[in-house]
Amino acid sequence: MQQWIKILLIGITVSTLILAASCTPPDSNVGSYAEDRALIEDLQARYMFALDFGDTDTYVSTFTEDGILDIRNGNPWQGREAIREIIGGMSEREEGQPQEEPQGPYPATGRHNITNIAIKIDGDKATGRAYWFHYGNNNPERSADVDSYGHYEDEMVKVDGQWLFSKRVIYNEQVADWIAPRENPCW
Amino acid sequence: MQQWIKILLIGITVSTLILAASCTPPDSNVGSYAEDRALIEDLQARYMFALDFGDTDTYVSTFTEDGILDIRNGNPWQGREAIREIIGGMSEREEGQPQEEPQGPYPATGRHNITNIAIKIDGDKATGRAYWFHYGNNNPERSADVDSYGHYEDEMVKVDGQWLFSKRVIYNEQVADWIAPRENPCW
Amino acid sequence: MQQWIKILLIGITVSTLILAASCTPPDSNVGSYAEDRALIEDLQARYMFALDFGDTDTYVSTFTEDGILDIRNGNPWQGREAIREIIGGMSEREEGQPQEEPQGPYPATGRHNITNIAIKIDGDKATGRAYWFHYGNNNPERSADVDSYGHYEDEMVKVDGQWLFSKRVIYNEQVADWIAPRENPCW
Repeated sequence: MQQWIKILLIGITVSTLILAASCTPPDSNVGSYAEDRALIEDLQARYMFALDFGDTDTYVSTFTEDGILDIRNGNPWQGREAIREIIGGMSEREEGQPQEEPQGPYPATGRHNITNIAIKIDGDKATGRAYWFHYGNNNPERSADVDSYGHYEDEMVKVDGQWLFSKRVIYNEQVADWIAPRENPCW
Repeated sequence: MQQWIKILLIGITVSTLILAASCTPPDSNVGSYAEDRALIEDLQARYMFALDFGDTDTYVSTFTEDGILDIRNGNPWQGREAIREIIGGMSEREEGQPQEEPQGPYPATGRHNITNIAIKIDGDKATGRAYWFHYGNNNPERSADVDSYGHYEDEMVKVDGQWLFSKRVIYNEQVADWIAPRENPCW
Repeated sequence: MQQWIKILLIGITVSTLILAASCTPPDSNVGSYAEDRALIEDLQARYMFALDFGDTDTYVSTFTEDGILDIRNGNPWQGREAIREIIGGMSEREEGQPQEEPQGPYPATGRHNITNIAIKIDGDKATGRAYWFHYGNNNPERSADVDSYGHYEDEMVKVDGQWLFSKRVIYNEQVADWIAPRENPCW
């Protein structure tokens, strides 16, 4: 065999191996910053719908099995069952106390919104910061009113391709004990 | 020819073919969840600018040719021309009735905002849920005021690489007949 | 050497070269619309945290070295040092004038939010439009209140893989000289 053929063969082999090592398979977008961020933004949105529409099952499922919900009241809840109890309990109490709701032409609603989502991703773990604010129409005229706001400090993990909250800490600027420290919690 | 050369050649051929089959071409990000979601978020933002700044042409172009706009008044509009008529008509009526605007030092404005965007994508079709709220300064002092909110239930299709609304249903918590049902409209 | 071996070798060489030219390396997601948009959304969020929490260093670092901040007062600031002076000065003035803050049970806060982010990307340059609004609780009851809004017109550049503001123009609907023109600033 001629010498140049041998060199050619070795060259092809090496370049093929380099290609095989560096080439992006079709599903490799999973893991890009954009892909992970997109999935986390979707999680954040679904969390809000579940919270505001009293969908406790979905709300709880946005946390990991041992996820932590901490509203800065000195008593964080850990685990889906603990979170279900407190969130489900809130909905039940609301339903059981219609007398506290001002008279109005139809049921009042309240909605939580998320903005300013900053996310750092490190493999299957992510750290998030975001603002939240709430408006509702719990008044006789059903007029819209912003009534509270704060920020989130989140830890998330990717479990079986799905991002979940492993820890959500909620700061609230309407309650003295739950307000944010002065320093920037973001980066 | 030596036997090992033949084996080497076959090996290279097979690995090259596998590479050719699995390798991601540069434009293959189109179609990833992140890419589609990014384009839909952009659509949602451009829709809002067009709505609030009275840009009827752009507003109408965010819908498919036979797209449906349904504000829950029992009378959905279908098709760009029908949508143009109702949206363009709104702007004209506003311009023709300055007497309804409170006195103020400069023209009042109103702005619609979108938050909590949840999106499911299935090929060239997408389903969306999101919150909207509106603030404005239509008062003598031009002070900012949130005055209404609700949510969107969207169906979108990708036409020639561009995402468009094929159906947008708008729920509004300030009008008894347009409020959302109690159950979670998201997933 | 047999003829078919030569043809095979040439075929492998050509297909390997095509692969090498077309194949997406792992970091090539950088540059997709989704990836750039994700990074810019993150920039927008971090800007807000830095602004509201008085983190001048981080705020300034969201601009390019010769970046421009223009709040439509006829006097745009250019360069990080000029921006630092005006933004840092604002924080100091606020800290130096507690007498202007209404009495309350704990320090008042204010928060800027961004929504409706439209972004066009052209290589290492990007053009953005978005809405902003502000709420705070600077009142004796620390109750939440939306008090101002407007929109951003942004130019951004990618420097060493990081998106930065090269120019941010801020329109504000609460000040007669700073309001937006009537025509749609978006596309």
